Amino acid sequence: MSRFFVSRFDDLTPYTPGEQPRDQVFVKLNTNESPFPPSPEVVKAASDAAATLRLYSDPDSTDLTQAVAGYFGVRPEEVLMTNGSDEILNFAFMAFGDAACGFVFPDITYGFYEVIADLNGIPYRKIPLDEDFTIRAEDYFGVGCNIVIPNPNAPTGIPLAIPQIRSIVESNRDHIVIIDEAYVDFGGESCIPLIREYDNLLVTQTFSKSRSLAGGRLGFGIGNPDLIRDLNTLKYSCNPYNVNRMTSAAGIAAIQDDVYFRKNIAEIQRVREYTRGQLEQRGFTVLPSVSNFLFVRSNFGTAEDLYGALRELGVLIRYWKTPRIQDWCRITIGTRAQMDTLLNAVDTIRKERGL
Amino acid sequence: MSRFFVSRFDDLTPYTPGEQPRDQVFVKLNTNESPFPPSPEVVKAASDAAATLRLYSDPDSTDLTQAVAGYFGVRPEEVLMTNGSDEILNFAFMAFGDAACGFVFPDITYGFYEVIADLNGIPYRKIPLDEDFTIRAEDYFGVGCNIVIPNPNAPTGIPLAIPQIRSIVESNRDHIVIIDEAYVDFGGESCIPLIREYDNLLVTQTFSKSRSLAGGRLGFGIGNPDLIRDLNTLKYSCNPYNVNRMTSAAGIAAIQDDVYFRKNIAEIQRVREYTRGQLEQRGFTVLPSVSNFLFVRSNFGTAEDLYGALRELGVLIRYWKTPRIQDWCRITIGTRAQMDTLLNAVDTIRKERGL
Repeated sequence: MSRFFVSRFDDLTPYTPGEQPRDQVFVKLNTNESPFPPSPEVVKAASDAAATLRLYSDPDSTDLTQAVAGYFGVRPEEVLMTNGSDEILNFAFMAFGDAACGFVFPDITYGFYEVIADLNGIPYRKIPLDEDFTIRAEDYFGVGCNIVIPNPNAPTGIPLAIPQIRSIVESNRDHIVIIDEAYVDFGGESCIPLIREYDNLLVTQTFSKSRSLAGGRLGFGIGNPDLIRDLNTLKYSCNPYNVNRMTSAAGIAAIQDDVYFRKNIAEIQRVREYTRGQLEQRGFTVLPSVSNFLFVRSNFGTAEDLYGALRELGVLIRYWKTPRIQDWCRITIGTRAQMDTLLNAVDTIRKERGL
Repeated sequence: MSRFFVSRFDDLTPYTPGEQPRDQVFVKLNTNESPFPPSPEVVKAASDAAATLRLYSDPDSTDLTQAVAGYFGVRPEEVLMTNGSDEILNFAFMAFGDAACGFVFPDITYGFYEVIADLNGIPYRKIPLDEDFTIRAEDYFGVGCNIVIPNPNAPTGIPLAIPQIRSIVESNRDHIVIIDEAYVDFGGESCIPLIREYDNLLVTQTFSKSRSLAGGRLGFGIGNPDLIRDLNTLKYSCNPYNVNRMTSAAGIAAIQDDVYFRKNIAEIQRVREYTRGQLEQRGFTVLPSVSNFLFVRSNFGTAEDLYGALRELGVLIRYWKTPRIQDWCRITIGTRAQMDTLLNAVDTIRKERGL
């Protein structure tokens, strides 16, 4: 820390991204990327845009916003495109949270929420998941502050049903409820239709996972036009050209190639269920995920132990040294071949240990 | 504004980007873009990267940081790559400014500084340029707070010499001095070498102008490793994957193709001096710019007047309704052919008015 760093950041602990090894020797099942490349149409659109980079991007992302709005059946003024969904989450925390109005979120969830709360000096409270790692909707009724909940939750993969979301939003009409749908495409149900009923609902999504664009940085928020206007005020006050020309073109093409998108989703769902069954046969406990990852507990050691043993065999997964989940690992769903590599590695480990 | 927007943003006035017309009918001399496309090597590198977008970008931008560090003769830990230089400026304001320690900057300068100060609740004071629109270094001696100065300044294009920068940094050892070198490549002198002498100096640059990557969003800061560490703490707390894979690849290729870069710079300098002479022959007052734009005053009306007349003839320039510069317009240097179109339009306007 330099002698110039302002004191309010003294205790700020930044987000820790998953390992990004710079070589390709690992089977990489640790950061919930898609195993499938972006659509050929996406690659072509982004490449064409590369030739136009001398010009600034459209600060309103007009074409991209229209494409996304059209896809989800909302109006462009109900959409804000951002540099990853992390950016819309940060804007939303800034816009709607302050010392007097904090946030609540689950105790086991996306670690970024508490980082952006701390960054923006916003108080927060964590609401414990139930024993079975589900979110109890009633714990969020009338909490008297803003709420952010991923649906499905991460890293559990467990969803909330729309009536549960509705009841949470309904009982907190004077505060913002953010539903983070980063993983919704893999089997959850989106609550975007509810934005017409509730001016306190903001839904966020990302192109990183289901649309194979993690490295392109594209996310968005959908909500009441007044909310979107507030978020735009912040965007234009710190990052007016937040979506670059290549990513914008890639996003439009990704939305348009819906056949490719649906094919990949279906395959990931198939491979997820296959992997779940295989892991259960090997004595693992597997949470009922509707996402592109499984949250699992082995019957032969801690998460750190499984992580380390798999890493030695060339397979990267992720775990956290967080209370309640020290025994659990998150495994991203890759291709069938990658999951077989994982399962073979598990067999090797089990054999070594005489199981 | 929604009923949820926190009150501290009640008076926030976002930055107003220059017009970005969505068709190509205008000769676009209003946002200081390069008239030259990115290098073919850049287009190829970005296109190749598009095929890899399923993977997250490297949060440390390791290869890009090394390329930039190598080019400028500094160490990687002295460099932070960002999503445009607006992002590093915002991080720097957040990191080093607070209610107790504000910023000063020139009264006529990049309009984004006061927006990010307001966004972050940081007080600021504007120091008037001299009568001839130059910055008087001595006005910044021992000001008792942080400083940001563009060198050359925008929209004047007038530079400070390195000894002047040094004297400002030297007399403010307990506060941060940011030198914003967005336009330095067109004829200014960079103060990057001074970072080894002064731990309170942060230099920012962008790939938007001289490297033809406005639409790619790439900027960076260079300074003491302790400063860079502070800025990284903020980056990892709100935008860990801030530089996308395509832009990262484009940036590396842009740094490597130095011949292309130097050829374009030389051409823009030639065309700038040509345009300056031609405008002066037509009765314009032109400030001594070392940038890729000219700040000019016509002898036949206000800036709004010249802007409107040129716009009708298909040429976009920029002006501000700001005290002291209502009579002045900023004209980006395009190709020789574009500047001849501008000059012909000026001739048409002058003829219409019987000049």
